[in-house]
Amino acid sequence: MSGFVSLVGAGPGDVELLTLKAVKRLREADLILYDALVEQELLELAPQAKRFFVGKRAGRHSIDQEGIHALMVRAAKRGEHVVRLKCGDPFVLGRGGEEALALEAAGVAYEVVPGVSSAIAAPALAGIPVTHRGLSAGFAVVSGHAESAYGAALDSLAPGALTIVVLMGLRTRAAIATRLIARGWSAETPAAVVVGASHTGTARWLGTLATLADHQIDSELAGVIVIGSVVGLATQIASEHVSTAVQAKSL
Amino acid sequence: MSGFVSLVGAGPGDVELLTLKAVKRLREADLILYDALVEQELLELAPQAKRFFVGKRAGRHSIDQEGIHALMVRAAKRGEHVVRLKCGDPFVLGRGGEEALALEAAGVAYEVVPGVSSAIAAPALAGIPVTHRGLSAGFAVVSGHAESAYGAALDSLAPGALTIVVLMGLRTRAAIATRLIARGWSAETPAAVVVGASHTGTARWLGTLATLADHQIDSELAGVIVIGSVVGLATQIASEHVSTAVQAKSL
Repeated sequence: MSGFVSLVGAGPGDVELLTLKAVKRLREADLILYDALVEQELLELAPQAKRFFVGKRAGRHSIDQEGIHALMVRAAKRGEHVVRLKCGDPFVLGRGGEEALALEAAGVAYEVVPGVSSAIAAPALAGIPVTHRGLSAGFAVVSGHAESAYGAALDSLAPGALTIVVLMGLRTRAAIATRLIARGWSAETPAAVVVGASHTGTARWLGTLATLADHQIDSELAGVIVIGSVVGLATQIASEHVSTAVQAKSL
Repeated sequence: MSGFVSLVGAGPGDVELLTLKAVKRLREADLILYDALVEQELLELAPQAKRFFVGKRAGRHSIDQEGIHALMVRAAKRGEHVVRLKCGDPFVLGRGGEEALALEAAGVAYEVVPGVSSAIAAPALAGIPVTHRGLSAGFAVVSGHAESAYGAALDSLAPGALTIVVLMGLRTRAAIATRLIARGWSAETPAAVVVGASHTGTARWLGTLATLADHQIDSELAGVIVIGSVVGLATQIASEHVSTAVQAKSL
């Protein structure tokens, strides 16, 4: 009896944006290790499985990364099928690579099931294409979690060339905006914050780099920041998912 | 009777990487307008629908972008549910934004259904996480289709900072490698080509910027180029999808 680990992307939140493969793996799972942003509705696809929360609560990790590795390895060695359910895509800023290496080192069989990344889907559901002919020929995705990560990454991008998507940057968005403006980005560069790309409704705030920090947004939410001229399309492209209550708050 | 257009991401190829929402839309569709890289298996999910190929064949468009817009609008105004099925995600280098604006201008109701982007999934299925702690805090996605697009985009990236993912760049990869090296990227920067991220098997070639153009690869294939130190993880991370026949060709 040999166990197996699936590193599964849960997508941006809406259960309908799960892949067929993710649903299949959830239905076969014995144990699910899930992150803070995974919605309850997704877990209900696997009523037979034990579920273990391994994310952050109130800014604190419930368990450290080594602990997650140990849980996966132990369960797989007991013969269980483990689903490590990660928000968005498992290999986008989610430490999925580290988990794959830990499983490899432990000799545990595993696979990666890519998911719909919030970096692309959250802007899309708010009416913002990350690329658009004549406006942006590409985009960069960076983590806003800590200056040690976003500092060098943002500094490496020439002002205005590509769309920037920042994940985990709500808390640091004032510093991010200041840094980009200091690097030569126009303070008038359109910038948006998108929160909760799910069927329960996407909320967005539209403004510029200069006003990015002015929005009253709960910094503990999972939000995506989009910076670049494509943000200007948001008012032209239908976004039926955007809650009007929140649209009213837009700058 | 009012028609409706769904701009749907078909994912990287494998039918199992379709989202639940994409499958639902395909099953409800009256008309499907699909691109060159959409696999036959996906279309079989919609046996009831009329299907119309609107992609490129032998490098030539079967129909121009205006023509696609006109087809969508006409069918929706007849009351049909149209699925515009696009490879990967509809808003990543796929002119989905233009299609949304055209529908908006015509007063046709539409929605965007995000998909799994090949920019992230193709590397993942070849054992390459686009981000990895200590190696890359972010990634940039650019089109390699024409110098007018990739030139400025690549020049805007400081050497070595972020992982670069190039879509539609197989034909131009020699020029891309030369350009990056001229901009200060080390010729020894790990670089990979990943082809066919689907259930029928992913093929990959591993090398460096210096050797990127040496691989014998059919330039007409849909391939993803990954450039950066994360490519070095490909030999450590299991990639059971990578066909061994092709692995043997790896540099």
